[in-house]
Amino acid sequence: METTTETKRVAIVGATGYAGSELTGILAKHPGAQVVALFSSGSGVPAPANPAFPDLVAQPFAFDALLASNPDVVFLATPNEASAELAPKLIDRGLRVIDLSGAFRLNDPGLYPTWYGFAHERPALLDEAVYGLTEFCNGELKSARLIANPGCYPTSILLALRPLTYVIDREQPVICDSKSGVSGAGKKADIAWSFGELYGNFKAYGVGHHRHEPEIRQGLRLGDRTPLVFVPHLLPTLRGILSTIHVGFTRTVTASEIADNYARAFENSPFVRILPAGQLPELKNVVNTPRCEIGYTLLQGGRRAVIVSVIDNLLKGAASQAVQNFNRMCGFPETEGLA
Amino acid sequence: METTTETKRVAIVGATGYAGSELTGILAKHPGAQVVALFSSGSGVPAPANPAFPDLVAQPFAFDALLASNPDVVFLATPNEASAELAPKLIDRGLRVIDLSGAFRLNDPGLYPTWYGFAHERPALLDEAVYGLTEFCNGELKSARLIANPGCYPTSILLALRPLTYVIDREQPVICDSKSGVSGAGKKADIAWSFGELYGNFKAYGVGHHRHEPEIRQGLRLGDRTPLVFVPHLLPTLRGILSTIHVGFTRTVTASEIADNYARAFENSPFVRILPAGQLPELKNVVNTPRCEIGYTLLQGGRRAVIVSVIDNLLKGAASQAVQNFNRMCGFPETEGLA
Amino acid sequence: METTTETKRVAIVGATGYAGSELTGILAKHPGAQVVALFSSGSGVPAPANPAFPDLVAQPFAFDALLASNPDVVFLATPNEASAELAPKLIDRGLRVIDLSGAFRLNDPGLYPTWYGFAHERPALLDEAVYGLTEFCNGELKSARLIANPGCYPTSILLALRPLTYVIDREQPVICDSKSGVSGAGKKADIAWSFGELYGNFKAYGVGHHRHEPEIRQGLRLGDRTPLVFVPHLLPTLRGILSTIHVGFTRTVTASEIADNYARAFENSPFVRILPAGQLPELKNVVNTPRCEIGYTLLQGGRRAVIVSVIDNLLKGAASQAVQNFNRMCGFPETEGLA
Amino acid sequence: METTTETKRVAIVGATGYAGSELTGILAKHPGAQVVALFSSGSGVPAPANPAFPDLVAQPFAFDALLASNPDVVFLATPNEASAELAPKLIDRGLRVIDLSGAFRLNDPGLYPTWYGFAHERPALLDEAVYGLTEFCNGELKSARLIANPGCYPTSILLALRPLTYVIDREQPVICDSKSGVSGAGKKADIAWSFGELYGNFKAYGVGHHRHEPEIRQGLRLGDRTPLVFVPHLLPTLRGILSTIHVGFTRTVTASEIADNYARAFENSPFVRILPAGQLPELKNVVNTPRCEIGYTLLQGGRRAVIVSVIDNLLKGAASQAVQNFNRMCGFPETEGLA
Repeated sequence: METTTETKRVAIVGATGYAGSELTGILAKHPGAQVVALFSSGSGVPAPANPAFPDLVAQPFAFDALLASNPDVVFLATPNEASAELAPKLIDRGLRVIDLSGAFRLNDPGLYPTWYGFAHERPALLDEAVYGLTEFCNGELKSARLIANPGCYPTSILLALRPLTYVIDREQPVICDSKSGVSGAGKKADIAWSFGELYGNFKAYGVGHHRHEPEIRQGLRLGDRTPLVFVPHLLPTLRGILSTIHVGFTRTVTASEIADNYARAFENSPFVRILPAGQLPELKNVVNTPRCEIGYTLLQGGRRAVIVSVIDNLLKGAASQAVQNFNRMCGFPETEGLA
Repeated sequence: METTTETKRVAIVGATGYAGSELTGILAKHPGAQVVALFSSGSGVPAPANPAFPDLVAQPFAFDALLASNPDVVFLATPNEASAELAPKLIDRGLRVIDLSGAFRLNDPGLYPTWYGFAHERPALLDEAVYGLTEFCNGELKSARLIANPGCYPTSILLALRPLTYVIDREQPVICDSKSGVSGAGKKADIAWSFGELYGNFKAYGVGHHRHEPEIRQGLRLGDRTPLVFVPHLLPTLRGILSTIHVGFTRTVTASEIADNYARAFENSPFVRILPAGQLPELKNVVNTPRCEIGYTLLQGGRRAVIVSVIDNLLKGAASQAVQNFNRMCGFPETEGLA
Repeated sequence: METTTETKRVAIVGATGYAGSELTGILAKHPGAQVVALFSSGSGVPAPANPAFPDLVAQPFAFDALLASNPDVVFLATPNEASAELAPKLIDRGLRVIDLSGAFRLNDPGLYPTWYGFAHERPALLDEAVYGLTEFCNGELKSARLIANPGCYPTSILLALRPLTYVIDREQPVICDSKSGVSGAGKKADIAWSFGELYGNFKAYGVGHHRHEPEIRQGLRLGDRTPLVFVPHLLPTLRGILSTIHVGFTRTVTASEIADNYARAFENSPFVRILPAGQLPELKNVVNTPRCEIGYTLLQGGRRAVIVSVIDNLLKGAASQAVQNFNRMCGFPETEGLA
Repeated sequence: METTTETKRVAIVGATGYAGSELTGILAKHPGAQVVALFSSGSGVPAPANPAFPDLVAQPFAFDALLASNPDVVFLATPNEASAELAPKLIDRGLRVIDLSGAFRLNDPGLYPTWYGFAHERPALLDEAVYGLTEFCNGELKSARLIANPGCYPTSILLALRPLTYVIDREQPVICDSKSGVSGAGKKADIAWSFGELYGNFKAYGVGHHRHEPEIRQGLRLGDRTPLVFVPHLLPTLRGILSTIHVGFTRTVTASEIADNYARAFENSPFVRILPAGQLPELKNVVNTPRCEIGYTLLQGGRRAVIVSVIDNLLKGAASQAVQNFNRMCGFPETEGLA
């Protein structure tokens, strides 16, 4: 692949949230990126975006200041509505945008009022936006004006299931029992997210109405007939997602068939590792790394499987995937700033 | 129910393990129990069994000392093989036994070599032993010589599913995605159980070969045709089990039908609480309590459900259930010493 | 001691906070208490006070409803200002009050504006209020109309130091390096108290301006000359306080002198345990118990000591100490409902 | 400073321990280092040293294989005795050694039998070894054959106190109340280090006999007269050390004097940050970073201070400090591979 060494000017909006903070830390060390502006997503006082870089201070957001910093690429680690409003304005001024929110992930504008609570002003951008699950993208990232960085849960599930869709039985429910560290919810001044309520606790939440459900359904190209059961849970830790996925197959499969399919799907994917059949990955393998690990155990003589995938929700589920997309967009090696 | 106020002499073997320690604490305050002997499960030095009762010291196990304490009831919180060997000897001497291990939970002796790694010397006791999932027991506890206290995972799953077996579709897999605190594994001098390996970590383990799988299958009276997918996971906390259970139904059911069945099943069960449809319980509701909470959400118009149950694995999953059984065995009110 | 078996009617205001919830759980099982009313400390919706007793629902606070419940004793687990306002009204109506806040702990009314930010309407009650560090109280609790339940940090420090004040060198600073679980701060909808900010974190806070500092100084009868250095820290756990106390002595002391003094001070104190010289207690010894453990190591040939004390901040540091005081007030055995 | 771009061949012994794993991760990304050999510290099976680099596999230690890899610099993340034995052999063969153990930290060979339990075979190396607290080193690192990387607790304490020794009152005790994450103890197959014993727990340990005590005393050049009270504690988290230090001064000092001294001491230290007077750092500021943060609060009108310092025990307290020393030794910029 042809690569570049030209430095890109990058700005981050939402740099003080959990994902934005990670993104700031990665881009500050990225040889091909020059951080020209850092903003928090709202008003408030200037604050360091990442404790490892106390001198990188995010300013209260100001659109004019963002433009004045003259960025090539703007990363939005902002709330959904803020991204939906801001991204079109930036694109109209010729800037390229990588959006970490859900504002441009769904193709069907009709889903936004139901799942996100707002209607899109610029539905045409939903068509144009590239869904940036990097491992399944090709040249489209290179030319994209707008990349919709995938959700954390969908990343963990789609990486595990997309290579097997050809043999998954769509008459049976696809069951995704996912568990996430608390940082997935962002910074919240709410008793429900206080240490006292979450320490030593564990719970399911959002069954049937989590915004990542239509994103998973879209990513798996599931028709209306196939039930998708997505049950997210909140782990008493800060980082990481482990998804335990239960699927049936249309026929008997062997471990080597599964292994071959995964190997083919990820042969050029430096951040995905498939474990040998019967070995399941654990969360700590990937926390604080940009990697995804996937393991599987066949059941019922090969008619079913339990598949487990793990990622760091703030990295492969957000910030490092955004940088993978940035690298592809700008012609850097995919691992630049990440390995 | 006729109850007694006569005090029973009780002994505990394995009092320094996690479950034994809890049991010691409960029985020390139980108005109907006099703790006459406490033993650890092996050799070693005398040690307090429970930090709240520094004066209750467990001695290294000695069979003669146990007999000399003249107990009415012996609680075994010992490893499986130790219970299998010890329980018959005690019963032969006319003592009554409540065993917290798995040594007498399975009816079929043929399963022991496969799942537990040893063959039973006294298979007849497997027939005689009462499987003490208290909520589903009646008079049999009163006359039992040997009660097999259920496993922690099976307790959480059977309480949730037994009242619904009449309508669960046995052509579809019953999927039990369970998550347990670390204490479920007992005290282990092993790097795999060290703080460094488990803090901030999360993982599935034992898929397809966990000893609780045949116990769940037996408890649900699942035939050979119905797949049971049991995936236990290890939470980065100490106590509690949350089981997320995915089942299909043979027909459409309504929330009120489910609610009615649960209400009927547990109308005399002081320690089980069913939440309103659509509400799912969280772990902290039950940690440090003898209670089980169960919630459910219907999916696909009533053709499927996600059912979530929570217990404290050391209490309802072990020690407090043993005391419920003790109460029933001896004619005390079921809540004695527990409420 | 003459004891009673007459049941007392008790009400709790602030029953849904961390300390109030514990208090509710204890009093619900206390043989001498009948819980006649439970209130949260503010408005809002009715909510269970303690997960182990889902049927005990706290109502939004209403003064008339409190009076109508006709309690003998009212426990206030309310904010400082709320207690300062409410306690006098209750006392004027002939009710007895045990206040878990700091509103009546300091004798000197002049300290309140500085340390608590408000002036007392009824300073005479500061004289009358009995400072309820139970182990150092005698008959005064029996006749008290108003008991000021001690702060959690002062409880851990005063139990450890009061028996040794005769030999502590007041020319040297008394250094109290204390560490508390997060529940000490109460339930807070604040990012600073969110799981994300506190998980895996640890910090000192409030050095030189924590409200417990004048309370410790008062409890030790330190003159103006002796510096008291009190540094509270926030542990990444929920419950428990460990205070590491550094003191110099006016002369050489021996371990047996220290041991004798502690033994004498606590000979009638069922909830205090002194460890042998050189052994220091750990937090888990006392979490979820009403007990205090104290250990010490002599340094410099007996001219200094490191003293470590541990309590559960919600129990001995709040709720169980309130019940010790209730027991003394009403003539129950001190351990009633607690052992 | 003159720097080099020549790549150095590096080997790590003890790469699978907590510190060795971090070191492997840093050196694998270091532009000036080529990792030519990785060994665990003992026998056993080959295993990945760092989860982020699953292909970097540590082999069971073999001296010949180490030599055959032809390293320029060998990092020893090995137990004290192993380092004491191995380092001389490597130096005799002309290799340069950076030792992360305590084997060469103390100048006085007479201290080893008492504090470390073994006598040194090559006491002359204690004279030669450079104590690599990088911020206080100059040219001596450049020419060193053997660098003794400081202990984690001493690093946190010496960085905070060395710039102030001129004004610290040596008639008063210097009190270091330190708290460390569990990883400080290394990987241990021991119930005392199991998750069940440490979760939600907190304790002091090793008072008066921790090996870092003579190292701190040596680093502060404390004479026999000044008492050093060092109380290490174990935090219920994995990483990080926070030291709360209590000192008296020989005279009144001002915040600006303290600030000036720190500024001068660390003007060329990219990894040390001094907070404004009255602000104290928290652990999460530095976890997963190579940085140290120090804050202070003056008491008694400037006659005393509470000083708080925080580091990541596995990075600034071990691996990243070793790489700082490697950079200085080899002529790389001090931040190479770390910023």
